[in-house]
Amino acid sequence: MRLFGKRTNGIFLDIVGMDECYCQECVKGMIKLGLDVDDPESAKTYAKRVYFKYINAIRKTVDKYDKNMPIIHNDGGAIFQGRDIAFCNRGHFELESLPTGGWGYDHFPKAAAYARTLGRNFLGMTGKFHRSWGEFGGYKHPNALRYETALSVALGARCSIGDQLHPDGEFDEATYRLIGSAYKEIEEKEEWLGGEYIPDIALFSSEALKCSHKNNPYDIGANRVMLEGHYLYNIVDENEELDRYKLVILPDCIPLVGKLRTKIKNYVKNGGKVLLSGRSGLDENGRFALDFGVTYAGKSDYTPSYVRPLFDLEPNGQADYITYCDAYAITLDNDFDGEVIAKRTDPYFNRSVEHFCSHRHTPYDRKKTSDAVVITKDVAYIGYDIFAEYAQHGSAHVRSLVVAVIDKMLDKTLVTDLSSCGITSLFDYKDKNMLVQHLVYGIAKVRGNGVEVIEDLPYTGDVKCSIKTDKKVKSVYLAPSRQVIDFVLTDDTLSYTVPSFSCSALVVVEYE
Amino acid sequence: MRLFGKRTNGIFLDIVGMDECYCQECVKGMIKLGLDVDDPESAKTYAKRVYFKYINAIRKTVDKYDKNMPIIHNDGGAIFQGRDIAFCNRGHFELESLPTGGWGYDHFPKAAAYARTLGRNFLGMTGKFHRSWGEFGGYKHPNALRYETALSVALGARCSIGDQLHPDGEFDEATYRLIGSAYKEIEEKEEWLGGEYIPDIALFSSEALKCSHKNNPYDIGANRVMLEGHYLYNIVDENEELDRYKLVILPDCIPLVGKLRTKIKNYVKNGGKVLLSGRSGLDENGRFALDFGVTYAGKSDYTPSYVRPLFDLEPNGQADYITYCDAYAITLDNDFDGEVIAKRTDPYFNRSVEHFCSHRHTPYDRKKTSDAVVITKDVAYIGYDIFAEYAQHGSAHVRSLVVAVIDKMLDKTLVTDLSSCGITSLFDYKDKNMLVQHLVYGIAKVRGNGVEVIEDLPYTGDVKCSIKTDKKVKSVYLAPSRQVIDFVLTDDTLSYTVPSFSCSALVVVEYE
Amino acid sequence: MRLFGKRTNGIFLDIVGMDECYCQECVKGMIKLGLDVDDPESAKTYAKRVYFKYINAIRKTVDKYDKNMPIIHNDGGAIFQGRDIAFCNRGHFELESLPTGGWGYDHFPKAAAYARTLGRNFLGMTGKFHRSWGEFGGYKHPNALRYETALSVALGARCSIGDQLHPDGEFDEATYRLIGSAYKEIEEKEEWLGGEYIPDIALFSSEALKCSHKNNPYDIGANRVMLEGHYLYNIVDENEELDRYKLVILPDCIPLVGKLRTKIKNYVKNGGKVLLSGRSGLDENGRFALDFGVTYAGKSDYTPSYVRPLFDLEPNGQADYITYCDAYAITLDNDFDGEVIAKRTDPYFNRSVEHFCSHRHTPYDRKKTSDAVVITKDVAYIGYDIFAEYAQHGSAHVRSLVVAVIDKMLDKTLVTDLSSCGITSLFDYKDKNMLVQHLVYGIAKVRGNGVEVIEDLPYTGDVKCSIKTDKKVKSVYLAPSRQVIDFVLTDDTLSYTVPSFSCSALVVVEYE
Amino acid sequence: MRLFGKRTNGIFLDIVGMDECYCQECVKGMIKLGLDVDDPESAKTYAKRVYFKYINAIRKTVDKYDKNMPIIHNDGGAIFQGRDIAFCNRGHFELESLPTGGWGYDHFPKAAAYARTLGRNFLGMTGKFHRSWGEFGGYKHPNALRYETALSVALGARCSIGDQLHPDGEFDEATYRLIGSAYKEIEEKEEWLGGEYIPDIALFSSEALKCSHKNNPYDIGANRVMLEGHYLYNIVDENEELDRYKLVILPDCIPLVGKLRTKIKNYVKNGGKVLLSGRSGLDENGRFALDFGVTYAGKSDYTPSYVRPLFDLEPNGQADYITYCDAYAITLDNDFDGEVIAKRTDPYFNRSVEHFCSHRHTPYDRKKTSDAVVITKDVAYIGYDIFAEYAQHGSAHVRSLVVAVIDKMLDKTLVTDLSSCGITSLFDYKDKNMLVQHLVYGIAKVRGNGVEVIEDLPYTGDVKCSIKTDKKVKSVYLAPSRQVIDFVLTDDTLSYTVPSFSCSALVVVEYE
Repeated sequence: MRLFGKRTNGIFLDIVGMDECYCQECVKGMIKLGLDVDDPESAKTYAKRVYFKYINAIRKTVDKYDKNMPIIHNDGGAIFQGRDIAFCNRGHFELESLPTGGWGYDHFPKAAAYARTLGRNFLGMTGKFHRSWGEFGGYKHPNALRYETALSVALGARCSIGDQLHPDGEFDEATYRLIGSAYKEIEEKEEWLGGEYIPDIALFSSEALKCSHKNNPYDIGANRVMLEGHYLYNIVDENEELDRYKLVILPDCIPLVGKLRTKIKNYVKNGGKVLLSGRSGLDENGRFALDFGVTYAGKSDYTPSYVRPLFDLEPNGQADYITYCDAYAITLDNDFDGEVIAKRTDPYFNRSVEHFCSHRHTPYDRKKTSDAVVITKDVAYIGYDIFAEYAQHGSAHVRSLVVAVIDKMLDKTLVTDLSSCGITSLFDYKDKNMLVQHLVYGIAKVRGNGVEVIEDLPYTGDVKCSIKTDKKVKSVYLAPSRQVIDFVLTDDTLSYTVPSFSCSALVVVEYE
Repeated sequence: MRLFGKRTNGIFLDIVGMDECYCQECVKGMIKLGLDVDDPESAKTYAKRVYFKYINAIRKTVDKYDKNMPIIHNDGGAIFQGRDIAFCNRGHFELESLPTGGWGYDHFPKAAAYARTLGRNFLGMTGKFHRSWGEFGGYKHPNALRYETALSVALGARCSIGDQLHPDGEFDEATYRLIGSAYKEIEEKEEWLGGEYIPDIALFSSEALKCSHKNNPYDIGANRVMLEGHYLYNIVDENEELDRYKLVILPDCIPLVGKLRTKIKNYVKNGGKVLLSGRSGLDENGRFALDFGVTYAGKSDYTPSYVRPLFDLEPNGQADYITYCDAYAITLDNDFDGEVIAKRTDPYFNRSVEHFCSHRHTPYDRKKTSDAVVITKDVAYIGYDIFAEYAQHGSAHVRSLVVAVIDKMLDKTLVTDLSSCGITSLFDYKDKNMLVQHLVYGIAKVRGNGVEVIEDLPYTGDVKCSIKTDKKVKSVYLAPSRQVIDFVLTDDTLSYTVPSFSCSALVVVEYE
Repeated sequence: MRLFGKRTNGIFLDIVGMDECYCQECVKGMIKLGLDVDDPESAKTYAKRVYFKYINAIRKTVDKYDKNMPIIHNDGGAIFQGRDIAFCNRGHFELESLPTGGWGYDHFPKAAAYARTLGRNFLGMTGKFHRSWGEFGGYKHPNALRYETALSVALGARCSIGDQLHPDGEFDEATYRLIGSAYKEIEEKEEWLGGEYIPDIALFSSEALKCSHKNNPYDIGANRVMLEGHYLYNIVDENEELDRYKLVILPDCIPLVGKLRTKIKNYVKNGGKVLLSGRSGLDENGRFALDFGVTYAGKSDYTPSYVRPLFDLEPNGQADYITYCDAYAITLDNDFDGEVIAKRTDPYFNRSVEHFCSHRHTPYDRKKTSDAVVITKDVAYIGYDIFAEYAQHGSAHVRSLVVAVIDKMLDKTLVTDLSSCGITSLFDYKDKNMLVQHLVYGIAKVRGNGVEVIEDLPYTGDVKCSIKTDKKVKSVYLAPSRQVIDFVLTDDTLSYTVPSFSCSALVVVEYE
Repeated sequence: MRLFGKRTNGIFLDIVGMDECYCQECVKGMIKLGLDVDDPESAKTYAKRVYFKYINAIRKTVDKYDKNMPIIHNDGGAIFQGRDIAFCNRGHFELESLPTGGWGYDHFPKAAAYARTLGRNFLGMTGKFHRSWGEFGGYKHPNALRYETALSVALGARCSIGDQLHPDGEFDEATYRLIGSAYKEIEEKEEWLGGEYIPDIALFSSEALKCSHKNNPYDIGANRVMLEGHYLYNIVDENEELDRYKLVILPDCIPLVGKLRTKIKNYVKNGGKVLLSGRSGLDENGRFALDFGVTYAGKSDYTPSYVRPLFDLEPNGQADYITYCDAYAITLDNDFDGEVIAKRTDPYFNRSVEHFCSHRHTPYDRKKTSDAVVITKDVAYIGYDIFAEYAQHGSAHVRSLVVAVIDKMLDKTLVTDLSSCGITSLFDYKDKNMLVQHLVYGIAKVRGNGVEVIEDLPYTGDVKCSIKTDKKVKSVYLAPSRQVIDFVLTDDTLSYTVPSFSCSALVVVEYE
């Protein structure tokens, strides 16, 4: 059989997934299993069962020819549906994510941060299209593809660029020039791509934990803060071992119940640090499951409200900053050794039938203040759905506030003054005795209805970096140029400056 | 009376405008004037009449105290409603345009390009808010405000930054630190702000000509091409004298009838050049009003279709590029001396009940080609709604195609290799014997639902510029630093390189 | 002042009422009263307050001229809104009710049955229109007006026929011929119109008790059963003295709590009889408030279900009759002396995702039966929303079932074999020593979209009647013809036969 | 094969029909036939083709067993779709028409009036249900079924009463008692059922002519006028021979073009009379195709308008009667010998933005009158969509106006004073030398949401009848009682009085 001849690398099955169905067959199936067909959960349960039946049938068929043939079941790049579903794929993962084709530039980094924890190779699949699949005659700007492939490798992924063949079978030269221009750069870097990603933070995914839905604002906002704050992080689920992380973040909506509660309690007992926000960390009784001296008193009466940092918040200093999200009332016990670093200020009133003020929301009443953001030895708490807030409104002050809290909790492995649209990562390539830092820089601009394009690739300024490390560093150079750069090494810290770059830079730290 | 005491600078009346109304009073009024109330136009006519009545009443009242007091009637920054309405304002114009407050970063440059032709001072009004008016506790990133004010002065406008006072009357320090940081830079540049903008191109506004509605894609797309192509241009209406322009553009939907037809014909007769696209240039009979050897044969049968440039189109070379917009069939007469620089390729079929292909549209049939873009001595024609296409889909190739046509038609006063998100302008400050070139660079990024923010201000590379001029140039320096830069002067061209900059740069050319 | 000159009979204020309003004034008013503006009830409370303010202002103004001048505040004939609101009218009530104008032929008899208990004169207001107010050139068939006026006087009301004057002030002859033809008949009967209506049954209105909304199916269905079953009844609210009634009906949705519970318990203690259906009669705890040996076990599992009478139900005998409404599970205690006269039969299954059968609902499973209709000494219970069922589906069997129950409970004052579309009533005109029985017969037919017209006035057969009375009857004759008819008088019962008639008949029973 | 064993009477295939379909197969089929798939007509054409394919396949299959087996393809009782489709049925027609199941009491008489012209036996199919198919436990009142079967035979149809068997296979006694009660009466009449229906009027169906859609108001209104005016009529299509009719009616919307025009012209030439209304009778040029002295001047400017009869219109005499429908302007040439029997009165103005008056429409301006209804020797014209008006508004005056016109045009075969809800018909049973007149009387009453029920069967008064006939009448009696009734016979007219009856009466006229 030709299909599984020696030139077949793997099987890719597209647009599969679990859909709830009430056709005669499925209803019959549910009843046979004793499921209650009036309960919507039953249809989900059954859909999953059907899906696994399909998975097994495929696997069995493929195995007849090759038991190691990779098999990919693609559902639009979904990866957070559960480990059982993810591991239906055989060989590796493919993260479909065309930034201009509906996924946006947010999707891939979030998926990659989770894929990094699953123990397999994975690739970032983008497309050559201006927009998306099936767009004959649509071409991305070469700079966009250069950026997207650089980002793939920076985040630990392999590369994949989708095209769609003209039905007359003739390959399109412009397409392969375009793809070639991006791949040329990757090829030049290939020697330094590898090693193990070094994470500081474990960010729990509310989607993976089934605390929220797909594309929820909690995970999106938290992932953006990680990227723009230049943290080294993974997105994790409840199966992840937490020992290797310095900080755990539970964004906005993750209760601490059952096994997760035990896991987090043990983690703290062993010296781990935890950042909670919103309703995260509450147990079944609506009390904080961790004992850090803060009492939870329910949703605040005012929405929107304000946050007033008690320090100079970047970039505009002290002020009462609007927070559109829900806020939560807390009190810090006097006995505990904690610090309130920001207060909540409430408005005079909520806008209502009775009360009205101006174009938008009501101003703050300077006298209505209460504790909002608390840092204690092990646990920090932010009394807002702060990650959703950032996802939905994008004010730099909101991110700055979270960054300020994290920076007080975390002894960062990597410190850099790269500006917010830059993305950085760090790998320990032990086989080759080198640390590799990726820096990627690009800003997508809205052009056209709902299209964010990358055309310009402007320059960063010089970027200062320092790495906490005990390695005996021999040299630092830029790859692939091998241009050596100066560094300073103290007991535990390596410092260097990456000169201004466009699109991406690769810093290689050779150690003994 | 205090109101008009010595500290009153002017009267600003917000949220006024002409709304069609069918209340008893308005219906009575229409009938009294003999208007047909069943005709929707009557309500518009009457609304305008009512508006003028209001205008006159205000003016009369103000005049009692001060006949020169400026009066602004603000309708969300509307400026294209007609000269009679614009000139209801007294003193100057205010272009309300908060980029994150619903106007977007497109609005101000377009409005300014038209305001430049109206013979008065005008200002660009933005806000200090993260989003919009009434947003207590909302703060823009200082970099955004630095960018927006730099853009205002670069486009010939004065600056205005809106705030909203807390009802307790206390000024907010963070706000004034923020505004101060932006105004400090403007203050430093003040000495070089002035002179006359030098335009090459007159771009007709389909909104001002009432060929299309507010926020139409034709004007938006054409304005983006002007900015991103770094052309010196004004947006004009039918009252503009065309003598001083080297090229006139009629984007997509502007028929040539009546006085406009005469004006354009005379302009061409006197050596002017014209770029038409789509249905622009057609007369009452559906034929081109200008005689340039091209016969119009109606809307093409296929949508979408493709454009195949017969030259290496930036950045991806020769290919069949998708165009989603309507295309138009033309034929170039053999007798005429014109050049077809791009062909249209049609798909095998339109997607329909009968025909289907893949995720999106149908591939091109390589054999179905016809003339699409023609350049003759005086007139160029692009057989697509190409400006709407760019507004709606934003593919770089579409802009490149238009730029290629313009660059063949136009002997540009200013040539630069600034990348696409940069904006540049040129003023002749005759009083001070200097040319002043502004360069502004910024990319807004989508953060949050529907918010485009500027936080990072990355660097350009070095920017090569050359200016067609017969001035005797003495020196070239950067302002406000007064750092001198090298230049080369030939018979008619001045060349220099602006070193890499962030946010904005000001180049001053002193001449004798 | 002419307005209140000697020719002014009263003041009629049309289209007034209580509307919930959130304008500035009303919100201000609610707050001033300490009402919670977020509670929808507050707006209702306030609307009523505003209404009474209006009422008082009008009254005060009118009183300046004439303290006895009748004042009518008309809200589309609403009468069930509460006694306080009804008694805002001064002098009498006007029941606006144009059968073809949106009210339907159901509305007036229901309103009249309640108005009879309020102690004032009232009139039935119809119109001369084919359809409704403002219909210039619209004329009812004279037969319709003859029927409507006959019905008015039969139900204890005076007559009012609305017209609308042509703006040129000329009275329309056809209109007054038409009205004249109806009024001529009323005039001929005038001598016998009067006396006191004799009711057997008190039917509680769920609308008046605020157990349900306007035009609810419970009251409509119950009222139809009263009319078509030819019962003598009043519709009552909780203020009505029950002593004079032989039977009380609580249709479908009236709980027995608070004062009503006490009133009904006392009524039963004093020998009164009660018919409950559906959820009527339940107390706060979901148990029957009256102790009649039946235990309530909640809503049945099947909808629709069936009712199987254990006797020959008119007109089709024993069968399992469909009931679309909700049914309720009950059990009759063995110790109690009650009779189950009908069983509920349940279908094999409810139609659902799992189960399907044929065009409509699922057939009955002959084996699934349980108690449904129970008659005990004092109380009868029907385990369905049986009155709503009749209102919504109109099956004769449903009415027959209720009639069978009532006829077992009630020693009827008036027995007649008049067919279902006939309406009858009985008055004791003590001043004149006579009983007066009205019989009215008409059937409205749908002609046109949503119009029910009366044109034909067909004949009844001969109608047998008997009246329970202890009067010494001297003679029985038809009015106005004074045609004497035969009668038979036993100890307590007077019997006679009304010969076939069209439209209406008036039987006068003279007694000593 | 059992199916076609000796006990099989025929094949009934339910819920079939022609549906437009765009599935792959149908699209492929359309293309193969060269149909334009973008034209909605193509899908109709193709659906019909598919339908005939189905028809032929069925016929072929059945023919294998029995070439005379009746086959019914039932599409909800549709009969007006075209003779080709109707004649797909083999043997007879079945007119499905459950009055309470969605068809209404209007549907059957209209379908029967057309079926009478198709030359086959047909039956009226009703159901035993309270409402419709699948209603287990739903029973009609026996009176309703008595009425419906009496109506079936009165209109020339056989009877069919649908039931639905309980799935346990047990016949339901109540159902067969119910059906039995109706069939008993039919059985008693059977001896007199037969003969040929005698029509005076040919009423063209706009649905059959494809001038309007299914359930259009023109046909519904015209059919009601026929029934309520007690005319002898058939509903016809363009294939009907008109010789035997005394009057042809073209209601509201039927143009006279092509063959129909020739047919009508010939009919008039041969002495036929024609009634036109609305736009009926116009040719391709918007002029009357018949030359009867009336010039058509287009739709009138006012809607609604009024009609003012110049005679005493039943029942309210002379007045300006509202007509909600469109009216048409005409002028009667002086030279022609015609009579204007009613004028149109126009309102002061149409209700509009400018003009308002009261609750509904604007009163008539007594001075604005013009010709509206004209009768000439051969042709009468009513300048309104008068049949749609009656269908939609049901005012008796509208019917009276049409009746007045017809009665001036037509020498009626049957004259009767039966009231409007009665229905009558006349058959010549030549085999038995008798004329048979049916009289049916019933009024459906709305009970429940959208249900019209018949329960009461009231009595008519005595009904005077006269028949234009040259038969030598021997006796007149009522069937089945054979009660002889008096008659008077003049040269050409037989007169008798049918005594008051309930439900139905059968008059038998024996002749030599």
